[in-house]
Parts: sequence; structure tokens; C-alpha cells
Amino acid sequence: MKYNPELRIKELGIILPAAPKPVGVYKPVLIVDNLLYVSGHGPFKSDGTLITGRVGADLDLEEGKLAARQVGLAMLASIKVHIGDLNKIKRIIKVLGMVNSVPGFDKHPAVINGFSELMAELFGDENGIGVRSAVGMMLPSNIAVEVEAVFELNH
Amino acid sequence: MKYNPELRIKELGIILPAAPKPVGVYKPVLIVDNLLYVSGHGPFKSDGTLITGRVGADLDLEEGKLAARQVGLAMLASIKVHIGDLNKIKRIIKVLGMVNSVPGFDKHPAVINGFSELMAELFGDENGIGVRSAVGMMLPSNIAVEVEAVFELNH
Amino acid sequence: MKYNPELRIKELGIILPAAPKPVGVYKPVLIVDNLLYVSGHGPFKSDGTLITGRVGADLDLEEGKLAARQVGLAMLASIKVHIGDLNKIKRIIKVLGMVNSVPGFDKHPAVINGFSELMAELFGDENGIGVRSAVGMMLPSNIAVEVEAVFELNH
Repeated sequence: MKYNPELRIKELGIILPAAPKPVGVYKPVLIVDNLLYVSGHGPFKSDGTLITGRVGADLDLEEGKLAARQVGLAMLASIKVHIGDLNKIKRIIKVLGMVNSVPGFDKHPAVINGFSELMAELFGDENGIGVRSAVGMMLPSNIAVEVEAVFELNH
Repeated sequence: MKYNPELRIKELGIILPAAPKPVGVYKPVLIVDNLLYVSGHGPFKSDGTLITGRVGADLDLEEGKLAARQVGLAMLASIKVHIGDLNKIKRIIKVLGMVNSVPGFDKHPAVINGFSELMAELFGDENGIGVRSAVGMMLPSNIAVEVEAVFELNH
Repeated sequence: MKYNPELRIKELGIILPAAPKPVGVYKPVLIVDNLLYVSGHGPFKSDGTLITGRVGADLDLEEGKLAARQVGLAMLASIKVHIGDLNKIKRIIKVLGMVNSVPGFDKHPAVINGFSELMAELFGDENGIGVRSAVGMMLPSNIAVEVEAVFELNH
């Protein structure tokens, strides 16, 4: 079955948030040849606010995972503004999943699965799953999760 | 107007520091096809010392931003040693900006703007601004800021 | 002298651990054109357990460096499963070395040298050394070191 992320988004009743405006000197998305690079994105909700707090203290694992899913939706919104049609994406290549966590919290991969499961739902297991690191950092504006990624476009 | 970073550096009276020597088993710069990869660079000053301290505790935002600018100058020095002429650079693709920060500090993007504004000054807004993540970590030798980047070269 | 990592592994009596199974929604290895991307890998030992603890508190520098070497072995195991023969690798391009460290510890590059020296031993100084960042983070499952990397394959 040919994947069709635009149709899949409609089928699942997913509403993308507005594409976030850069909060610094960077571009949200940039294309080099057939690779699409995406800046670190935060968990923007449909009302424009961000999910904040440190996972393992202010947020539990399940809330962190939902934040990671919301990062994915915000990222897709940015990409859609840039290329017009998500069906132009061939596959996801690389993900750096950054969790705002406290020392002692050690389930970063389970948090970032919220992002990765969304991509697999929309693009399929073959094209929606890439290489990944999922680790803990300190994040700007105290956002719960930030993800940067590289996608490949169809030729 | 065609950008000319070598001329712009002269016009602005910018003096690049000496290209930093690797402090481990890595190359400062490596080229694959038309992409130039740069190792994480620290804020080397012209006297060869590094700007150290955690932003939000030992350094304030403005000092952190100056450290990020100094990282950019050190990185350009490394690239210039490697390719001879900064005008061979077409554009900046991707930046990972790492701030040595304390929990509670949340203005990493404003710090890394010190690096990004330098690149925009020298290469212009179109080519000097790429995708970016700006986050908080623990950094080697207690340096204030570290940045790794990928540039595209002219064909 | 032409490098031959498969032969070198035998000469040095190195035993690769079993390729680690993904602990989340990601692929261990993914190839795009002639680049091979590798997910963040942990320090898997031959008995399948991980080296855990924070460097600078639970582990000293030398133990951290050994953990980084073990990450390299686990990564090569993953790559070998994926491409069959490590001699297909042309060179290492880029390394992100992540050390599970405590504030105050500042020797991340010396820790990650454990990974980088292994690659240089197997692939030679020209092809086994790429660009690198070596920094401190919080890591999943409290592993001591995690490394993600990009390699170039022979055409």
C-alpha cells in the first residue's frame, strides 16, 4: 500500500497547529538537494501555547510522550508551509529527540516515541521510522520536548 | 548584491582568532561532496584563551551571546585554514548551538543568536541563516558555548 | 597501506557484542545514497548488559573512556548486521559523543576519545577520524555514554 500522509491526517482527524514562527535567527526548514532539514521544534498546541515543564518532575512519562507527539504535529505544520504538500516527503532519515528532564529520569526513548509513533502512523513503518537519539537536556522556554529532524524528499 | 564574506570581514574590522587545535581525536573540518562539516567549536578569543562559565550563573545573557559570536569567529578561522577562502562557502545549512547553562535558564536561542547574527552579517540573510537547535548541556572545559555546523560549498 | 577493518578486528582479537535491539521506535542504521546514518548507541557489553552511571561521580574518566570504546563496538555490530561487511565503509564523517556526566565534570572529549581511538585503530587516521562534538547530557537508562554517527560508504 502506498502511504499517503495527507489522506492519513484527514482519516485520523488530526488538526495541525499553526506553523510556529522562529524565535531566533534561523529558518524553520531548509532544503539541500533531496534532503529537508528541520530546526528544533517545540510542542506547540493548536492554541499557540507551548507544553512546558521538566519530564520526571512537572510532567510524567505519558504527558511527556504527548508533548513529543505535539512536537511532531508542529514540525509537520512547518514543513507543510514550506513545501505545500506532505506527500512530497519520501521518508524520515534522522531524529534528535531532546527531553527536558531531571537527573534520575531515564526514559527519554519512551518520551520521544510520541513523536516517532506519529511519524510511523502517517508515513508507515518503512518510511516513517529513521535513525534516532533520545536524550535529556535543558531546553529553551522550559519546553518539555524539542526535536530536530532530517527528511528525504521524493525526486 | 552578491555577498562577499572575506570583504565583509575586512569592512567590519573583524580579526579572526587563530584556528583552534583539536583537543581530542577529531578533525576540525571535513568535506563530503559539497557539504562542509565542522566539529563542535568553543569560544576561543584572539589571545588563545576560552570564554568559560555557565550562562545564567557565571555569565549573563549578553556575555553568553558574545561567547556565541566568538565561537563563530573561531569556526570561521578553522574553515579558512581548511579551504583557504571563505568566499567558497555558498550558505550555512544546519547549526547545533549548545549553551553551558544552569537549570532555570531558558534563553538558549537568544544566546546562540550571537553566532547566528554573525553568520547573517557575513553571508547575508538568505545564505547566512540555516536551520538550528539551541539547547542547554554540560560542556567540556566549562566553556560557555559550543556550536557544531554544516555548510554548503559553491560547486 | 589499504585499511581493512575486518582484518584489523581479527588481528586485535576484538569480539563485537551482539547488535543491540532498538529500545524504541527507530532503526539502528539507515542508508541514504552513500551515507550511512547510525542511531545513538549505548555501551553494550558482550554479555548484553549496559555500562551505566554518571562519569565524574559513579565512573572515573578511564571507566568512561572504556564505555565509549564499548559504544563503538556495539555500533560496529549494528552496522555489520546491516551491511554485512565493515570493509564497505569508506570513512567516518561525523560523531556526536554524549557523556552522562555531572556538573563540574569537564573532560567529555577525553571520554569520547575511547570511541574515536577505536575507529582510528580500525579505519586508520585518515578515514577513522571525522568531525566531532563531545558534550554532557542526561542519558536514557543511566547509560554512561551514547554516540550517534554518520559514515560514508565506498561507491
